[in-house]
Amino acid sequence: MKRKSHGLAFFLIVMIFGVQTMFAQTRNLMPVPQQVEWQKGKVRVDSSFTVQVKGHPHPRLYKAVGRMIHRLAGRSGLFLPQSFFDPQETICHPNLLVTVKRPAAIQLNEDESYTLTVANSQIQLQAETDLGAMHGLETLLQLLSADTEGYYFPQVKINDAPRFPWRGLLIDACRHFMPMEVIKRNLDGMAAVKLNVLHWHLSEDQGFRVECKTYPRLHQLGSDGNYYTQEQIKEIIAYAADRGIRVIPEFDLPGHATSWLVGYPELASAPGPYKIERNWGVFNPTFNPTIEATYTFLDGFFKEMAALFPDAYIHIGGDENNGKQWNANPQIQLFMKTHHLEDNHALQSYFNNRLLKILTKYGKKMVGWDEILHKDMPTNIVIQSWRGRDSMIKAAQQGYQTILSNGYYIDLIQPTDYHYLNDPAPQDLPVTPDQRSLILGGEATMWAEMVSPETVDSRIWPRTAAIAERLWSAGEVRDVDDMYRRLETVSFHLEELGLTHEKNYDMLLRRLTGNRNISALKTLVDVIEPVRIYNRNRLRKQFAYTPLTRVVDAARPDAAVARKFRKQVDNYVAAKNSNLELEEQIRLQLQLWADNDGNLQPIIDVSPVLFEIRQLSQNLSAVARIGLEALTYRKNPKVRPSNWAQKSLVILEQAAKPQAQTNLMIVSAVKKLAGVGEN
Amino acid sequence: MKRKSHGLAFFLIVMIFGVQTMFAQTRNLMPVPQQVEWQKGKVRVDSSFTVQVKGHPHPRLYKAVGRMIHRLAGRSGLFLPQSFFDPQETICHPNLLVTVKRPAAIQLNEDESYTLTVANSQIQLQAETDLGAMHGLETLLQLLSADTEGYYFPQVKINDAPRFPWRGLLIDACRHFMPMEVIKRNLDGMAAVKLNVLHWHLSEDQGFRVECKTYPRLHQLGSDGNYYTQEQIKEIIAYAADRGIRVIPEFDLPGHATSWLVGYPELASAPGPYKIERNWGVFNPTFNPTIEATYTFLDGFFKEMAALFPDAYIHIGGDENNGKQWNANPQIQLFMKTHHLEDNHALQSYFNNRLLKILTKYGKKMVGWDEILHKDMPTNIVIQSWRGRDSMIKAAQQGYQTILSNGYYIDLIQPTDYHYLNDPAPQDLPVTPDQRSLILGGEATMWAEMVSPETVDSRIWPRTAAIAERLWSAGEVRDVDDMYRRLETVSFHLEELGLTHEKNYDMLLRRLTGNRNISALKTLVDVIEPVRIYNRNRLRKQFAYTPLTRVVDAARPDAAVARKFRKQVDNYVAAKNSNLELEEQIRLQLQLWADNDGNLQPIIDVSPVLFEIRQLSQNLSAVARIGLEALTYRKNPKVRPSNWAQKSLVILEQAAKPQAQTNLMIVSAVKKLAGVGEN
Repeated sequence: MKRKSHGLAFFLIVMIFGVQTMFAQTRNLMPVPQQVEWQKGKVRVDSSFTVQVKGHPHPRLYKAVGRMIHRLAGRSGLFLPQSFFDPQETICHPNLLVTVKRPAAIQLNEDESYTLTVANSQIQLQAETDLGAMHGLETLLQLLSADTEGYYFPQVKINDAPRFPWRGLLIDACRHFMPMEVIKRNLDGMAAVKLNVLHWHLSEDQGFRVECKTYPRLHQLGSDGNYYTQEQIKEIIAYAADRGIRVIPEFDLPGHATSWLVGYPELASAPGPYKIERNWGVFNPTFNPTIEATYTFLDGFFKEMAALFPDAYIHIGGDENNGKQWNANPQIQLFMKTHHLEDNHALQSYFNNRLLKILTKYGKKMVGWDEILHKDMPTNIVIQSWRGRDSMIKAAQQGYQTILSNGYYIDLIQPTDYHYLNDPAPQDLPVTPDQRSLILGGEATMWAEMVSPETVDSRIWPRTAAIAERLWSAGEVRDVDDMYRRLETVSFHLEELGLTHEKNYDMLLRRLTGNRNISALKTLVDVIEPVRIYNRNRLRKQFAYTPLTRVVDAARPDAAVARKFRKQVDNYVAAKNSNLELEEQIRLQLQLWADNDGNLQPIIDVSPVLFEIRQLSQNLSAVARIGLEALTYRKNPKVRPSNWAQKSLVILEQAAKPQAQTNLMIVSAVKKLAGVGEN
Repeated sequence: MKRKSHGLAFFLIVMIFGVQTMFAQTRNLMPVPQQVEWQKGKVRVDSSFTVQVKGHPHPRLYKAVGRMIHRLAGRSGLFLPQSFFDPQETICHPNLLVTVKRPAAIQLNEDESYTLTVANSQIQLQAETDLGAMHGLETLLQLLSADTEGYYFPQVKINDAPRFPWRGLLIDACRHFMPMEVIKRNLDGMAAVKLNVLHWHLSEDQGFRVECKTYPRLHQLGSDGNYYTQEQIKEIIAYAADRGIRVIPEFDLPGHATSWLVGYPELASAPGPYKIERNWGVFNPTFNPTIEATYTFLDGFFKEMAALFPDAYIHIGGDENNGKQWNANPQIQLFMKTHHLEDNHALQSYFNNRLLKILTKYGKKMVGWDEILHKDMPTNIVIQSWRGRDSMIKAAQQGYQTILSNGYYIDLIQPTDYHYLNDPAPQDLPVTPDQRSLILGGEATMWAEMVSPETVDSRIWPRTAAIAERLWSAGEVRDVDDMYRRLETVSFHLEELGLTHEKNYDMLLRRLTGNRNISALKTLVDVIEPVRIYNRNRLRKQFAYTPLTRVVDAARPDAAVARKFRKQVDNYVAAKNSNLELEEQIRLQLQLWADNDGNLQPIIDVSPVLFEIRQLSQNLSAVARIGLEALTYRKNPKVRPSNWAQKSLVILEQAAKPQAQTNLMIVSAVKKLAGVGEN
């Protein structure tokens, strides 16, 4: 694949169109293409819309065209017969002509570029491979617009290719099992934002999720019955390949291994028996790297898995081996001495090297978390950086290919812009050009301790669309406000793929209220977020059986209502109270919140699952009342009581503390309005 | 299974508690059990809640207990470790003790009875088989209640068993393919309301949906790639069996057969080639019943399918053979003459008898639509009545077992009470007791011309819960208002099984408005229904590729807001305008509608898919304005202009006509208020 930086081209376009707003540049496109030349004119779409494919694509493209037409029909209500796309059908003057030179291989560094020209005569989509063509179809769908006359595509010339070749989403199907439809709908979402790697985390302390014919006790005893059959694995791989997505399985070794050892305790570094783990954290059970039985077992295991998973890469985990079982086992200690292995890290590298031989034997390359970086390892492995950017830089400097996940941990409930601005390879990175080329891309990581099939989409989407843009678009594309504007549209369009991030919100609120009126609860939950990082488990110990149906689960990352309010307050304060329209909007919003507790408490009274948010609800209204007072006092400081700031600060500080494992996300803005405390 | 009528017992209980409301009797139970004795007292549920299973159930029960605990946790937010249910675990004093005598076979007439006693000392669930126990677990979940102190089960004694042994839902996976998760979540919904047969319609003019290894062109050429692999079929059968549900496949023969003949045109009654049908209706392609090749083919086919589907019954369709190909084929006409087959019906019976021999050879019994009823057929087949109740009665009178679907055609968008009051075997049925016992039950039929995976749940649920009650509960349980009250609760609880009938409504409205504010559109769509029976296709020709994302698709059967309004108006008129509180509610509702068009038209202006509802939106507001005027004139007839009634009637009659293939469901109520026209 040609991997030139298109940053300069984009920059030039921004210069040329500099007088226009970002909207005029980016419209609803996400990821932003490398080169966009908007032109005047609209190409109308009606029920006579037709498509033809020419050239030599992989047949997956025909299915993709059918899906695109189906979605176009779904949005527009137009009856489009080509929803059943027949590549044999002769279309004399197709409205959309797709031309592809050759079939793509679903592998790293395949050509994904395309050009798309929307002109009155014809819409032309051209690509080297069907992968590029599929990306172009997604771009075309994002261009669909409407006015009082009907639907149309704006005239435009787009020239596009990804900045990084490895753009992934990790889905942890172990901490909570993720049924087939969860994986499938998220693959559709990935394709819509041009991600191309599903990193499928398939073994953990809490579950082993693949049918293994060689060692059937793995799935029989290690999964609670929740595993993918090999037929299902093949189904997912085919589904992903149809969407241009590679599937990389992760089998986490030698730690995070409890579920393997339930059925095969003789491979552990301490005597069993072992039970599937029901807690969250880092646990002791670890493979014994000093006995040959381990490698015989792993040889048989990876022989089977190498045949099942076609991608060239297999992920072996390698993270968070706490070494306790190794330290406590005299035989292992003796082995280390005999083999001159100075510490556990060296022992793990010994293990990894043995594993690498096995993978190599079966034609696979190794990927692992940054703990596998060690002087004893050859540089033909890929390092996935999670503990810090440093390990990515270090890996590249030492000649390893590397991918970045640090900063893309979407399970940690951080806001979208935090992830968005996390560039794997900014200009000032301390690496040579050669080292820079070793940075393959990145992966968002959906670790699943705190998500169920009902909530997982709301943790992945829409934030992952912004990460997808970071990995696809030029590094210069980093206007946060414009990203948030486009994200709203993208998020809504992702719903047509079956994703539940939006629609399960009301459903969870209905369940919480026993199907009573949800409006008051929604007003509250709209402005709270689950506590960030790993604090949820710290504030209240969580288990594998914790129901993920509580207020903290309905609450969503980067709460949009609160974010918009904070922005309004920023603007209002920056304008020195002069924007009266904005003031009125802020006042109305605060008034709604101030009144909300009175509406919500009667619902809480008869919904025991809501008892835990009594204080939280009171806090929202108390904070809002301070905000209303602050609006008054900003205009008329004289009427402000002398102890008001002090009293308010106490309430605000109290309200800033987590309640029911959530944070109230408007406190900083009200502090700012009130001119008290740190914001 | 013991099939005594529990009607008398229920009647006695109604007598005993006669002074109380229906609510006190039925609470949130659906289907209403045969015997319920409510008692005073509450059994509290907290995180110490435990379950033990004793006796000899099929292991499926352990999974069912785990699912029940998981749902209990999900509703209550309680951390219940037994979500991972381990039958080996010793519980000293379980809160719920389940005792089962023997494992059930998943077959017709298996014992499904249970008794459930909620007492302070312990909750006891006892059943002959795990099927009864699973029904009891669903009943227990429906009992879960809450007050200001927390969650509890009310003390009660329940003795329950189904009235009919065959309680089914037909899902047509052919007209639109229904992916695995659609089938699975609907199986969960079925189990929640104690249905026990999935009738899976697997072949049609528009698609052949099962992988066939003997004749692979069936699925390869007849399905557009949308078919179930045999592994997936097995997965569904196992999933259903885990929920006590039989799976009966339907392979529709000899008509409705286009998709078979695409790959095997030599078996048709007229020369091919054939293409998968994209229109809706009754089509000509029909198997040739006069050539041995047909029976050789069907022998090989049913040999394979008989092994794949374990149930004793296979459905062979048999409906709507229009006979055109037979009439036009001289060789077939000669065959009929030679074999003294007087008409096409006799020829079809010849075919059916040949088919019956094949099914019998492979250990299967035959079910078919009522067209297969013919003097030449033996009585060991089951007749499914769809064209009218008469065929059910006739079948029973002639000694056939029979099931009723006439009156349960949920694809025809009729209101819930219509289906609910449709009793397969009312007291006055002209049959002997022996003949009565041949009536096995009934099936709701989800024909799929006009539903997609996105909308199908909203056509099945919640109405099918009322049909489930008809087939389970005593015939005397027929209070429509109480049914509707309970249906709201049941419908909401069905969401926890992943069903989308509620949550996809807003999603479709978001798509229709391009994610603009949906409130005005919702106000309109809340009071419209898709046109009933087969009128949608008559008003605008529909195709297999018609997007099912338009207003008519978002609109739902038995529109609850309109139904409640009609009821309010009925009550108001019956009370002769004296109920002022009701009058105020009606006025507020009418005012909202009267103002709605002004809010909705700006949305329509920029949403071309909504252009078709411009008139509909105007109609709602016009009708509401007449309603407001009517309220005034009812109180003060003197101010009513002389030509008002006549003018209003013109508007109302106009508004009663379908728009965008939907009906405005408040017109009759406003006519009633206005005292004009027929209501």
